[in-house]
Amino acid sequence: MNIKKYQDQLECFAKDRDWEQFHSPKNLAMALAGEVGELLEIFQWLTEKQSQEIVATDKGKIKVKEEIADIAIYLLRLCDKLDIDLDEAVSHKIVVNGKKYPVNLSKGNAIKYNER
Amino acid sequence: MNIKKYQDQLECFAKDRDWEQFHSPKNLAMALAGEVGELLEIFQWLTEKQSQEIVATDKGKIKVKEEIADIAIYLLRLCDKLDIDLDEAVSHKIVVNGKKYPVNLSKGNAIKYNER
Amino acid sequence: MNIKKYQDQLECFAKDRDWEQFHSPKNLAMALAGEVGELLEIFQWLTEKQSQEIVATDKGKIKVKEEIADIAIYLLRLCDKLDIDLDEAVSHKIVVNGKKYPVNLSKGNAIKYNER
Amino acid sequence: MNIKKYQDQLECFAKDRDWEQFHSPKNLAMALAGEVGELLEIFQWLTEKQSQEIVATDKGKIKVKEEIADIAIYLLRLCDKLDIDLDEAVSHKIVVNGKKYPVNLSKGNAIKYNER
Repeated sequence: MNIKKYQDQLECFAKDRDWEQFHSPKNLAMALAGEVGELLEIFQWLTEKQSQEIVATDKGKIKVKEEIADIAIYLLRLCDKLDIDLDEAVSHKIVVNGKKYPVNLSKGNAIKYNER
Repeated sequence: MNIKKYQDQLECFAKDRDWEQFHSPKNLAMALAGEVGELLEIFQWLTEKQSQEIVATDKGKIKVKEEIADIAIYLLRLCDKLDIDLDEAVSHKIVVNGKKYPVNLSKGNAIKYNER
Repeated sequence: MNIKKYQDQLECFAKDRDWEQFHSPKNLAMALAGEVGELLEIFQWLTEKQSQEIVATDKGKIKVKEEIADIAIYLLRLCDKLDIDLDEAVSHKIVVNGKKYPVNLSKGNAIKYNER
Repeated sequence: MNIKKYQDQLECFAKDRDWEQFHSPKNLAMALAGEVGELLEIFQWLTEKQSQEIVATDKGKIKVKEEIADIAIYLLRLCDKLDIDLDEAVSHKIVVNGKKYPVNLSKGNAIKYNER
C-alpha cells in the first residue's frame, strides 16, 4: 500500500473542500472512533461464526469493506497530521508485542490472554 | 507498506500463541474498538491545538504512535481474516467519497459537513 | 437512582478540581467513549457465554462494575451539561423503539434484527 | 430514575421480540459502543463551544437526546443481565474517585489531569 499516495490524495480532498480546519488530531480520532462504531454495529448481534461468514455474501462483504476503508482513511489522515510513519509504527509494534507476549507464557485461554 | 508481510507476521504471532481461536472478526472488531478507546483517552481533555502539539515531545509522540500501531495491527488482522484487500478498499473508498461529497456542495462549515 | 444528586456531586467534584474547563460536551463524549473502550477490552476475547459468567467471580464483577460506573458517570455529567433529562429521554426512547420495532415484524433472527 | 422499572420494560421488550438470545453481555457492550459511536459523530467536527451550543436548537437537542437514551438503555440492560446495581455502582465510584484524585493534587491543567 502506498501510504504517501493516499495521504496526498486525502490532503487534496480536504483542501479542495476547505475541510482542513476540521482535521485536528482530536477530531480525526473522534471520526475514527465513529467509524469503528459503525463496524461494531455490523457485528454486534452476530455470533463469532456468523461474523466470519458475513463476507460470504457480496452485500455483507461490501458493507464491511466500506467501514474498514473509512477507518483506514481516518487512520492514514491522522498519521499524516501527526507526522507518524504508519509503516514504521506497525513494524516496531510487532517487535514490541513479541517481547511483551513471549510464546511460552502466552499460550493459553482467553482469560490469561486477557490479563497479560 | 507491505500489507501481506505484516499479515503473515501477525498470523504467525497468533498461531505461535494459540490465539487464532480468539481472532474471529467479531472479536477483532471489539479489540480494534478497545484500542481506539485508548487513543481517545490521550486526546479527550486536550484542545484541538494541544492535540496537534502532542507529538512535539518524544513522550507524547511515542504514546500516540503506539496506539495508532495497535489500531492498524487489528485492522490488518481483520482484513486478513475477512479476505478484504485493504489497499483496494481504501483506493475504492476515496473515489466513492469524491462523488459523495462534490467540491461545490461540500465547501463550508462543520454543520454542513456534518449533515452531508 | 437520584440523578440530580449524582449530577450535583459530580459538578462539585469537577469544580473543586478546577476541571469544569475540560468538561465540554465534546470532551465528555470522548471520555465516555474511552470508558466504553475499557469495557470492550474486558469482553473482547470472551465467548458470549463467558461474558455472562464474568460476574461469577468477585474480581470479574468488580472490574465490570467499575467500568459501567465510569460510563454512567460521564453520561450523567454529559446530560447535566446539555440540560438533558436522562429519565425522560429513556422513557421517551422506549416508547419510540416500541413503534420502530413492532413485535410482529421484529421477531426473528439476528440478521433481520440487524437490518431493521 | 426508576431503574428497575426501565429494566423490566426492556426485558419485556426483548422477550416479546425473541431478542433475549442476542443480549449477551458481550453483545450488549458492543451495541453500547455502537451507540457511543453515533454520539461521537454528532460532535466530531464541532468545536468545544459548538458542542455546548448544539442543544440550543430543537433539532440538535433531539438528536443528542436520542443517542444518549440509546446509550442509557443498553447500559441499563447490561446491568440487568450482569446483576449489577447501577445506582450503587455510581455511588461507590464517586467515593473511589474522590480518593483517587485528591483536590490538592488534582487541580491543574489538562496534561496533569490526563496523566493522573
